[in-house]
Amino acid sequence: MPVSRTASTFAPPVMEARRWLDGVTHPDHRPLLNVSQAAPVDPPPAPMREAMAAMVLQDPETHLYGPVLGLPALRSEVARQWSASYGGTVSASQVAITSGCNQAFAAAIATLCTEGDEVIIPIPYYFNHRMWLDMSGVKTVPLAVGDRMIPDAAAAAALITPKTRAIALVSPNNPCGVEYPAETLAGFRDLARAKGIALIVDETYRDFDSRSGAAHDLFADPDWDDTLIQLYSFSKAYRLTGHRVGAVVASESRLAEIEKFLDTVTICPNQLGQRAALWGMKNLGTWLAGERREILDRRAAIEEGFGMLADQGWTLLGCGAYFAYMEHPFAASSADLAPKLVRDAGVLLLPGTMFMPTDITQGARQFRVAFANIDRNGIGTLFNRLSQTVY
Amino acid sequence: MPVSRTASTFAPPVMEARRWLDGVTHPDHRPLLNVSQAAPVDPPPAPMREAMAAMVLQDPETHLYGPVLGLPALRSEVARQWSASYGGTVSASQVAITSGCNQAFAAAIATLCTEGDEVIIPIPYYFNHRMWLDMSGVKTVPLAVGDRMIPDAAAAAALITPKTRAIALVSPNNPCGVEYPAETLAGFRDLARAKGIALIVDETYRDFDSRSGAAHDLFADPDWDDTLIQLYSFSKAYRLTGHRVGAVVASESRLAEIEKFLDTVTICPNQLGQRAALWGMKNLGTWLAGERREILDRRAAIEEGFGMLADQGWTLLGCGAYFAYMEHPFAASSADLAPKLVRDAGVLLLPGTMFMPTDITQGARQFRVAFANIDRNGIGTLFNRLSQTVY
Repeated sequence: MPVSRTASTFAPPVMEARRWLDGVTHPDHRPLLNVSQAAPVDPPPAPMREAMAAMVLQDPETHLYGPVLGLPALRSEVARQWSASYGGTVSASQVAITSGCNQAFAAAIATLCTEGDEVIIPIPYYFNHRMWLDMSGVKTVPLAVGDRMIPDAAAAAALITPKTRAIALVSPNNPCGVEYPAETLAGFRDLARAKGIALIVDETYRDFDSRSGAAHDLFADPDWDDTLIQLYSFSKAYRLTGHRVGAVVASESRLAEIEKFLDTVTICPNQLGQRAALWGMKNLGTWLAGERREILDRRAAIEEGFGMLADQGWTLLGCGAYFAYMEHPFAASSADLAPKLVRDAGVLLLPGTMFMPTDITQGARQFRVAFANIDRNGIGTLFNRLSQTVY
Repeated sequence: MPVSRTASTFAPPVMEARRWLDGVTHPDHRPLLNVSQAAPVDPPPAPMREAMAAMVLQDPETHLYGPVLGLPALRSEVARQWSASYGGTVSASQVAITSGCNQAFAAAIATLCTEGDEVIIPIPYYFNHRMWLDMSGVKTVPLAVGDRMIPDAAAAAALITPKTRAIALVSPNNPCGVEYPAETLAGFRDLARAKGIALIVDETYRDFDSRSGAAHDLFADPDWDDTLIQLYSFSKAYRLTGHRVGAVVASESRLAEIEKFLDTVTICPNQLGQRAALWGMKNLGTWLAGERREILDRRAAIEEGFGMLADQGWTLLGCGAYFAYMEHPFAASSADLAPKLVRDAGVLLLPGTMFMPTDITQGARQFRVAFANIDRNGIGTLFNRLSQTVY
């Protein structure tokens, strides 16, 4: 057994990738194109910043401890909007606010698992999910996905053991970008319910789903909370990454367990971030719709322009929300090529090897591009640089 | 084994205490006196709020992700002030910023322990420390303290087993208020070093220590970081509880492990809180000295006025920083008396039972009063109410 919780897992991939930049100078005509992290690069719109400044100046509560499970008004607003948009019933007592969506996952797992338990996750995975499972003493059971990068409930069924506590999905997916069909999610829900385990669905990127209407009907099931745990992030929609605000939607009894974890790890989510998220939910609906259109246009630019790379032997495996997931045509591993691309092409992206266990080898052929930060022009530049770089 | 990490521990005591207020109305002439939580009730001073509002409006970085281990300028400022005030050498690379001091403890334990390990902590303990050890699968080994509520390294030595990974102390202490003598801390450091385990010292309340100069000389030891892990909170000094900013000071190699935990649980500390803490460290030294004098005056008021309770058979076990720790004269358990005191005396305080394992019975005779929020007048009212309430 590793000597400590942290010794059981690997170093943060995003921080490792940042270190590849050390000592590399980028010529003026070729500035760095950083497509490594899924994060807005601009602050929230000016009216929101002004509202936040007023809170800092005028609302003393912004500076004080609040309830462990979050600001009641924000919990209510999430419940209201969720009930409307998913066509189901979510109450404020089924919503907790967390210090970002990673913490929502960590808290959910803490209520489900103990030493030696198992959680099934599709490969490629979101690396922070794997890291938390490692540090929790929980075995990550990899679920292979098909050509469309969509997992299959029947395949997952074969992996369930008496120690399995949950299946965790991310849709729209990180790193693949693919949007899981509603029937896929319903199939996983049915499997999880039949086996008495939880289904965790991380919808961090839901606001940038290309489909109109609800992406799934899981909340329309009146008994949804016996199986479903949904995770959400306010960071991407409202450009609040620096404020750390996420949410977990689950049964009231599970939230009572989650309260133990959140109290011990952070006491409460930060108050300004919560107030900003609430302000955003109430005032930025139209603005957010525009943001979504822009991201969908960038996605279209990836799909339209990919031919230039396809001609060189690249394959687009998945594309959507913030991400394009690609297969490269080179013999070397993506783990070795990614740092080289910083030097040779002025492009920082993450290798597929970061998104799967070391004994699963297909990641060596894959890259994740977080394209949300670059416009059509930048996407053109990215394709030019990648297509001109041959190993 | 409990079915999950959270099932292995108890519900958050502060939230449980808040529920005692439900359905209780306080008459106009006797408003609630809440001495349950160690937290400022006022926002930061106006110049700091103005500086924070300007950051929100003008500094885009305030809204974006930052480094996992914290804002470099804040890490440097802590290192600079620590080196000066403790008479030792602390470098920026030995400082990490966390989302509050609870998270600093959680991160430190994650780097030290795994399933089945042991950590020694004095009784009474800070309950969130116990909760995190429970959720980490780590056995809490209770260390009895003497009459002065000061633990003894020789007594701790007898509790060390091959599974012991650390001794965790809080000074000034929560819940007892007592300030551990420098030689006590040095004795624990020597013991920990000799046994090859870590010494965690949580100095959340250091800014309100009554002693002039450094409270200990642990950092003056050039090899301090082979043994010492110090925890700190910006919440109390600068009234930033709602912003969640703490710190952990440890070896660079330990911080590399801590980075895994922090990345997975929160990605980064929130950016505005970090900037506010930095602004406070640079601009509020004089203001903070005044805050300390005020808290020390309130402590004096507790000590001077306690005779009124002593006459009724109460004993003051410890007093300092934010806390007074008291023994009551009644036959009933503090666990039953604390909710009654809300109704009968309009006083919310925490019972000693919350600060120790259920099989250690002395907590039934004890209460913690977090007096920092009430002035001399309020302290007089508290004593009047408690002395007039007899069970």
